[in-house]
Parts: sequence; structure tokens; C-alpha cells
Amino acid sequence: MYNFRTDMAVERTDIYKKVNNIQKDINGIEAENELQKDIEISRVKITNEEGEKALAKPIGNYITLDVKNMKTADDEKIEEIAEAVANELRNVIGKHINDTEDILVVGLGNLEVTPDSLGPKVISHIEITRHILEYMPKLMPEDTRPVSAISPGVLGTTGIETMEILKGIVENIKPKLLIVIDALAARSIERISSSIQIADTGIVPGAGVDNKRKEISKKTLGIPVIALGIPMVVDLASITNDCINLFIESLQQKAMSNEYLNELKEKDNYEEIKEALIPRDYNMIVTPKEIDILIENMSKIVSKGINKAL
Amino acid sequence: MYNFRTDMAVERTDIYKKVNNIQKDINGIEAENELQKDIEISRVKITNEEGEKALAKPIGNYITLDVKNMKTADDEKIEEIAEAVANELRNVIGKHINDTEDILVVGLGNLEVTPDSLGPKVISHIEITRHILEYMPKLMPEDTRPVSAISPGVLGTTGIETMEILKGIVENIKPKLLIVIDALAARSIERISSSIQIADTGIVPGAGVDNKRKEISKKTLGIPVIALGIPMVVDLASITNDCINLFIESLQQKAMSNEYLNELKEKDNYEEIKEALIPRDYNMIVTPKEIDILIENMSKIVSKGINKAL
Amino acid sequence: MYNFRTDMAVERTDIYKKVNNIQKDINGIEAENELQKDIEISRVKITNEEGEKALAKPIGNYITLDVKNMKTADDEKIEEIAEAVANELRNVIGKHINDTEDILVVGLGNLEVTPDSLGPKVISHIEITRHILEYMPKLMPEDTRPVSAISPGVLGTTGIETMEILKGIVENIKPKLLIVIDALAARSIERISSSIQIADTGIVPGAGVDNKRKEISKKTLGIPVIALGIPMVVDLASITNDCINLFIESLQQKAMSNEYLNELKEKDNYEEIKEALIPRDYNMIVTPKEIDILIENMSKIVSKGINKAL
Amino acid sequence: MYNFRTDMAVERTDIYKKVNNIQKDINGIEAENELQKDIEISRVKITNEEGEKALAKPIGNYITLDVKNMKTADDEKIEEIAEAVANELRNVIGKHINDTEDILVVGLGNLEVTPDSLGPKVISHIEITRHILEYMPKLMPEDTRPVSAISPGVLGTTGIETMEILKGIVENIKPKLLIVIDALAARSIERISSSIQIADTGIVPGAGVDNKRKEISKKTLGIPVIALGIPMVVDLASITNDCINLFIESLQQKAMSNEYLNELKEKDNYEEIKEALIPRDYNMIVTPKEIDILIENMSKIVSKGINKAL
Repeated sequence: MYNFRTDMAVERTDIYKKVNNIQKDINGIEAENELQKDIEISRVKITNEEGEKALAKPIGNYITLDVKNMKTADDEKIEEIAEAVANELRNVIGKHINDTEDILVVGLGNLEVTPDSLGPKVISHIEITRHILEYMPKLMPEDTRPVSAISPGVLGTTGIETMEILKGIVENIKPKLLIVIDALAARSIERISSSIQIADTGIVPGAGVDNKRKEISKKTLGIPVIALGIPMVVDLASITNDCINLFIESLQQKAMSNEYLNELKEKDNYEEIKEALIPRDYNMIVTPKEIDILIENMSKIVSKGINKAL
Repeated sequence: MYNFRTDMAVERTDIYKKVNNIQKDINGIEAENELQKDIEISRVKITNEEGEKALAKPIGNYITLDVKNMKTADDEKIEEIAEAVANELRNVIGKHINDTEDILVVGLGNLEVTPDSLGPKVISHIEITRHILEYMPKLMPEDTRPVSAISPGVLGTTGIETMEILKGIVENIKPKLLIVIDALAARSIERISSSIQIADTGIVPGAGVDNKRKEISKKTLGIPVIALGIPMVVDLASITNDCINLFIESLQQKAMSNEYLNELKEKDNYEEIKEALIPRDYNMIVTPKEIDILIENMSKIVSKGINKAL
Repeated sequence: MYNFRTDMAVERTDIYKKVNNIQKDINGIEAENELQKDIEISRVKITNEEGEKALAKPIGNYITLDVKNMKTADDEKIEEIAEAVANELRNVIGKHINDTEDILVVGLGNLEVTPDSLGPKVISHIEITRHILEYMPKLMPEDTRPVSAISPGVLGTTGIETMEILKGIVENIKPKLLIVIDALAARSIERISSSIQIADTGIVPGAGVDNKRKEISKKTLGIPVIALGIPMVVDLASITNDCINLFIESLQQKAMSNEYLNELKEKDNYEEIKEALIPRDYNMIVTPKEIDILIENMSKIVSKGINKAL
Repeated sequence: MYNFRTDMAVERTDIYKKVNNIQKDINGIEAENELQKDIEISRVKITNEEGEKALAKPIGNYITLDVKNMKTADDEKIEEIAEAVANELRNVIGKHINDTEDILVVGLGNLEVTPDSLGPKVISHIEITRHILEYMPKLMPEDTRPVSAISPGVLGTTGIETMEILKGIVENIKPKLLIVIDALAARSIERISSSIQIADTGIVPGAGVDNKRKEISKKTLGIPVIALGIPMVVDLASITNDCINLFIESLQQKAMSNEYLNELKEKDNYEEIKEALIPRDYNMIVTPKEIDILIENMSKIVSKGINKAL
């Protein structure tokens, strides 16, 4: 299997095409793009096993919202993006359960590691209703959907696989659907805290940073799992690979091209780069300097988006 | 049942004696005190149903460590108190399980509400071993005890009863004993963040602030539950009651005593005071101004104490 | 001088009248109230030396906005109160400087002590313009007012009197007016984080908690100083004094009145209560349990109010 | 002038030698290394104008402490490094003032931007004495040095040049020496939060990230300024440049070398890389994912180091 080094279906589609020199559509994959104001929405649908194999992702829907300039987004812009997130979420949820069925929102990640704190930060702004419906039902309209929310922590601080924690909770409180928020690894630094991927196929926490944890999905938990992921980190070898390509392009434009450069650029040099970096303890996972404000804005968007959708 | 307005067995013993004018021991209750350096340790043991009824607490052991001047405790003092906590904990744990059996540490409370943040803060400093024993057992000595830790949040932010969350987790990961850390309500402002109660009878979260949640105990979870509680808040009516008593005492010393004062002091005026305060929305739950530093120091003590004991 | 134990002119006026048994107006003091929706606005003006002496506050304007239920204020309510704060501020500022003159906003207090963190939290949301006007003037409309902002810390963490720090800065950057935000001590627990006092006479930090620092005012800095203060703490003796009064009233209503009770209530028992509490180290400064959310909401109101006004 | 893209004298020395193909010492620069346990200490001394010109740094002393594995440093290791920092600081301070003269410690940076929060975090742990010596001198030994501390904020949040703020304070409280703590930009990702540079020549905040602010030095403030800087960020073009070199080296070892590769490696490709990255908004400033724990540990080391030295 090709090492995509990204959790994002839209990036995998591009890479798969490039690596396999495919111009037209991939069999088993339907893709379409839409521009809503300045939000670019890509919808990738994996429809059969061939598509599954190509992208190494399960059959299902993968929606990506790309937003520019998250760092300087004001209240109005945040409201607008949240609305777009809500629309896509509402759509995907409606494919699996009805309007009054019970949802549990799960914020993965570690509050004390800034680039990994998005999930817990979103959870603290979710409008929960389950306990009010249980203890003071008269305070709420009759058809209110029960919503609960939890931040289960990470294996490194709990000693317990997140899937195991969620399994126990799902068995006891029996929600009908899970929404799981997680920080992703992307391949491109451009996407950090400015893309949102919504997938109805669950999630494998840590998959993007070579630290795979147990899958959180319908297969392991018995109920549909919608994963809402936002890229927050990128590994240095990915960046360098991208940068070398940009660098070579720029050299070529200056008519300095030669066969070797073409060759370098053609192929993916990630493994060689990683190999060159590792002996010096160089292949760090990095995040932009502005990560605090990026996370602040993105957690507002995601929590508002979820609240609007539920 | 008498409204003790405190979760602390040591305070309840004193109140019960005062209210019932008892000078000698209460039947069904064994109490002893010890002074280790400047830490006062009280051990209350409820031995039968009569004792249960008197203190309205289940049969079991209740140990209180009282420390002065937590606000200005330095590293050395913190180390010393942590050692005392570790000794008591080790002792209590040893009564229920052996040295290599699995323990789950649970931090109750809400990280975003300062006086309620102790539990989650302690959790982030617990040295967990369970995942290492599972995935890289060779890194640890053979007889290492598996320790895991979780902050399940509070009903108000998750929509789920903490007991329900813990039930699911306990059923799935099967620890042999739970240590639950919680902020308590005390009756005396002196005890805020300067007393630690260790009980092997579980806990009813929120009991001290009239917001009772489902019991976390052997009865509900099937395994022994050691509760480590620290008073963090006190309600205004309790303070006022105490203050009025002090005030009257001071008037009496100035020879201003009269029958009415004696009468006032004799009885517990809490209900009248509460009644007088409530119409004006006055009966707030309060906490000292220095709560941040108090919690900082206490979370060091508790996490070090637990780490030493396990 | 009477020990008012409050920084709020509106409370002092009430106390002065009660203590001196005054029914009509106090000479040298003009007071009026206004109700804007559910915000109660009191305007106290001290007009001469007699008024100064009565309230032990300098000649000038003191405006108090009282808001109910700050703990549950939603975005709309916050916007509405901010608008009211902006109106009063604009008014007071307009009495001293014109629309394009330079303002420095100062947030007093200690970010690491929750009940004392309001000032620094407000500062981080002030829209500053001074550096843009200096380095990139073309980005701003011509008549933009230069606004700068600073959190100078507190004596206990800097070792320097705040006034000394501000003096140096004022001499170097020469603003025309200072807005100083500070947490106040109030006498009534009801006012905690639900009153805002705007005064154009400067401030003596720590005055309300018997920890007086050097005055920050026109007298010491040479430019007008508008103080925006919000009560955040109250001392236990004040609470107890209030509570005893309420308690006695309630006893009296139950026909338990007697001469001694009348006598107790008539006079201010603060000093006796304090005396009775101090030997036991009981006179703590306290704050409500919900202080985090109170400060969060209030810092939004104040920063929005200032931004709208400037 | 060569664009060194690093604030660290030790990196500049290496780069200067490489760029100019110098094997022996540079005129005007004395350099020596020492290994204390696993701390590598480099001392660079610029002795004349030629040295100044070579490194584009003023005449003075530049000491760098390099530590490995800061991410996993335990209490003992932190204590040990703090001791080494204290020794170097004591030494440098002793060259400028005597043991009882007044020092002001300044923490540059923005507490709300994680990679820029080191300065303010250190300040909150400095043991200050100035106010005690002023208000309660009897509490301290007679020869105690007055120490004060301040976090003046950054231009982007105050609207005021840090140098202007410090000028005012220095003129008013008249310390004899300044210690300024700042986050630096380094060229090598290896140094992030694991090197400490101590220089007695002051600092130009933001110099390493092309955002130069007014110099803080003896020239501008009239008293000696010791700068204690720790690299916290690195720009992507620097990383890529380093990575391309490592990548090419690795290709060469695999006998894939050719003339062009040699040429590529020989010269510094930073400008071309930056040029290639900028049109795509790619040249971000990045920081490692683990920045929170790195800063936590480093702020303990620096504050302990300063406290021991003073």
C-alpha cells in the first residue's frame, strides 16, 4: 500500500492520480467540487472495493471544507463557515439516523498539548441536552434531540485505548450515532487549521502520525461514527518533500532544469528524505507558530457548526 | 436525619456529639488522632449500623489529614505531606487488593471551574503504567502495578451521570480498585484546601452542595472505591452560622452575655439563617480568593501522594 | 473617617445616610437613578468638599451599572450591556479630551489569581491602534484615535508600585487620558461581578481590601484617569455583618425581637465581628464558586464596551 | 551583510566559517567549548570591530548551553541545568555590577501565543525582593539584592514599543542592570527549546523573524542588558534548506552524486527556497508539536537559574 501520509481523502485522491498518472476519474471514486462564497467544498465518495483499495479508506462519504485565512477570521466569517459545516453535518447525519435520535459528541485529543487540544475545546462548547431531558424534561420542547459530550483523553495520559472507553460508554448510555472530533495530520502545511473533513466512516486516531490506535467506527462500536477532522500538524519530511518540489520547479523555471531534477521531482522522495532526517533526530512533527489563535477560531467554528446541526 | 452540611466524617462526629450533648464515645464509632510533625491525622472508623445511622455514612474507614498554611507551602513541605498521604493510601489500599492488582484513578470535577478543578488537575500528573505494560511490557519491572487514569467530566458538561461513564469503563477494562478524587464541601472555611479525607466507602458526588449525583461505590460498580476528597467550597449560611457563634462568644467574653445569646448559640441556626438569606439570593457557595494557589499546591500533594503509594 | 469597606460610591451614599440617619439628600452630593431595560444606572456626583468628606472620595462623577444574572448572560445580553457601558464611557471621556486624542488602557490585577484577573483579560481584547498609526498610518482612517493598552502586573509579582510603572510609561508615550480597569471590593456579595463603576477621579489599587497602593490619578500622573471597577471579592466580616442583620430581621419578623437585637442591628458590628474572626484566622476574602464564568462574561462586556466607546 | 537567519552567535560562527571557507579562528572572535556532564557550553567572545562585522553582532560575550532531550527532562535534570545557567549568569552579572545592586528581570513575549510565552512564564516564578526591601526591610538579610520583574507585553498587543515601556520604568525605578528573557529564532530545529544563549550585549526583539523592534541595550537604556534567549521557532525555508542539504548528502552517499548536487549543496539556497515558497504563502514559522512541555521545562530551568544566580 502506498504511504499517503495524510488522513484527507481529497489529498489521497490527488496523490493517487499523480502517482499512477491518471487523468480521468478513478474507478470506485466519485468526486465533485463546489465553491460557496470563499469556502471550497470537495465531496469524495468511495463507492466500491476498488475505490477502497485505491485510497486505502473504507466505502463512504468524505467531505472537505477548505477555508482561507483562518488566522484573521472575524465573528461574521466564523458564523458563515459554521453554517456551512452545519449544512454538511446535517446532511450526513440525516443519512444515518432521524431528527430525535440520541447523539454522543466525542472530543479526542489532549487539552494540555496545544496542537492536540481542538477536540476537548470543542466539547466544552457543545450544547448538551441529555441530562435536562432526563431530569427536567419539561424545560425542553418535546422533540429535542438528546445530545451528550465527552473528552475521553488520550492513551498517553489515561493508559486506556480511547476505543475501550467509548465502548463502555456506548454500551451503557446507548446513543444512536457518534460524532468524533479529532486533529488530523495533513500532507500540506496549507491545510493546517484551515480544512475540515467530515467522513461517515469513523476514524483511526493517530493514523496520520504513525501512532495508530484502535479504530472508532461502526465495526467496533456498532453505531455509525461521523468523524470531523481538522489538520493541525504536518511532519517535517512531508514539508521538505513539498518544499523540494517547489524548489525544483522554481529552479526549472529559471531554466536550470536537467534530467536529474525531473527525475527527483517525478518520484516521491519522502522515504529517502525521512531516512536522511531520522539519524539526526530531525523528523519532528511541527505546527505553525500561530497555532493558539488557529485553534481558538476553529473550535468556535466546529462547536457552532455542531450546535446548529443538532 | 440531621443535615450535617459537610462530607467530612471528622466534622460530623464533632457535630453529632455537640447536637446530642455526648461527652464520651459514640457507639459504633472509633476515633483516634495522631500528630505527625504539623500534620494532624484523625482516623474515624464506623463499625456498625448504629454508627452508620449517627453519622449518616456507611461502615468503613475515614482518615483526615489536616495541614496548616497550605497557601505558603514550599516544595519540602509539599513532599512531606505527600509522603503522609501516600502512607495512609498504601494502608487503605492494602486492606482491599494486593500490590500488583490493577487500579484506575478517577478525577471528578470541571477543569474550567477553578474551585472544582482539583480532580482533573491531579489526573494529569498521575504516572500511568497500564498502556506500557500492555504495549511495551519489557520497559517495566515485572511486578509493576497497572495504573490508569481518567477525568470523566461532570453531568453539567457531558449530559451523562459520572457513575454511568465509570460503569462502562470498569466493565471493559476491569480494574480491581478505584481511587476517586473529588472536591468536597466542608462546614468550616478553615478546612478549605487544607484537609484531605481518605475513605474506603466510595463517594456521592455533589452531596455536600445539595446536588446529589449517583453513588460511586462498591455497591454500584462492584469493586472497592477509595475516595480522596478535599474541601474547596463552603456555603455562606454555614460560614454565617459559624461566624455568629464566634461573634456571640466574643460578646459574651466582654460580659455582654444574656439568656438570648446563650440560646442563640446553643442551637444550630443554619436553617433560620438560610431562610433569611435565600429570599435575597444571598446563599452563595464561596471559595477563598487564593483558590488558584491552594489548588496548585494541593494537586501537587495529591498526585505525588498517589504516585508514591502506587 | 468611617470605614466604608467598599469602593463603590453608591454603596457609600446608602451607608452614610443610614449611619447618620439622613432621609433627604446629602449636601455636596447629587444622586440619580435610571433604569435602562434591566440595567440599573446610578449616577453619583460629588460636587464640593462637604460631599468629599461625607463619602471620603474626591470631587467627580461616579456611575454604577447594576446588572442581574451575569452568570447566565448570553451573547445578546452581553452586547446590550456593553452598549450601555460604551455610552457612559463615551460621555465621561468626552468631558476630558476630544475624539482623536491618545488613550492608554491599563488592566490592573494578576492573571494567575482568578478573582483578580479581570484587568489583564480585558486588555487582551482591546483593539489597539497606536502602533498601526505609527508604522502603517495608511491602513487606518485619518481621525482614528491612538489606543494603546498594558497590563503592568501587581506589586506582589513585579516588586514595583504600579503607579511607578505607569508614570514611566505616561512620561514616555504621553497619552492624554488613562482608562484603568480594576477588580474592586464591595460590601455586598450581590454586586460581585454584576456591577460596574465608572469614575473620573482615578483609583487607589487595593483600597477595598486594606492593601492600599499608590494612587493612580491626575494628581500623580498629570492626566485624567477614568477608573472602571468591578467588584470581585468581599471580606467575610462584611458578609457576616450583612448576614447577621438579615438574620436578626428574620428573627424579629417571627416576633422574637427584643431590645438587644435592636441594638445589635442598629449599630455596625463589623469591627467586633472582625475582632472575633481574626484570632482564628477566619477573616478570609472570598469569591463565588462561579468566579470563572463571571469573569469571562464581564471581561467580554468591558472590552466590548471600551472598544465601542473608542 | 550575510543573512544569518539566527540570533545565536555560535551558529553564526559556524555559518561564517563555512560560507567563507575558513578553517582556523576568525580574527576578533575567541571561541571555546566545554562539556559539563551532558551540557555543552560554548563561549564566543567578540573582541573587536572585525569580529563584530563578521558575525554582525556587537562586541561582548555570548555563551550557549546546549542540552539534549529537554522534552523528557526530570526534576533532577532540570535542577542540574538550572545550576549551570546560574553559574554562567552569576559570572556575566559579576562583570558589570556588584552583589547588592538592583536588577530588573524582563520577560518579553506574549503569554497567549504558546511558542512566545516563555518570557512571561519565567517572570511569574522569579523571586522578587524589591518591594519587601522597600516596605518591610526587616524581613530580609541586610545585603539582599533588590530584584524586580516585569512582562511588558508585545507591540502587537500593547501598541507600544517594548523599549519605550522599559525606558520609562528604568528612568523611574533606576535598576543597575537588566536581564531580558526572550524566545529566539534559530536556524536549526535541533536547538528549539534545548539551547540557552546568554549575552551581555542586549537584544533586538524579533530580529530572528524579520520583525525587528527597537534595540534593548546599554546604548538605548543606559545600563547593561544581559539577554537570555531560547530558540522556540524556526522558519520553514531554514528547515528546508537544512533538509535539502541532508537529503543531498544522503543521495551522495548512495553514489548518486553529480556535479549539480555538489553545486546545490555548496551554496546556501535559502533565498531561492524562500522565493519559491512565498508565492504560495508557504513560508510559515513553525514550532514542534511538543512546544507546551518544552516551554514548561525550559521556564522552570530559566527561573530556577535566575533565582539561584540572584
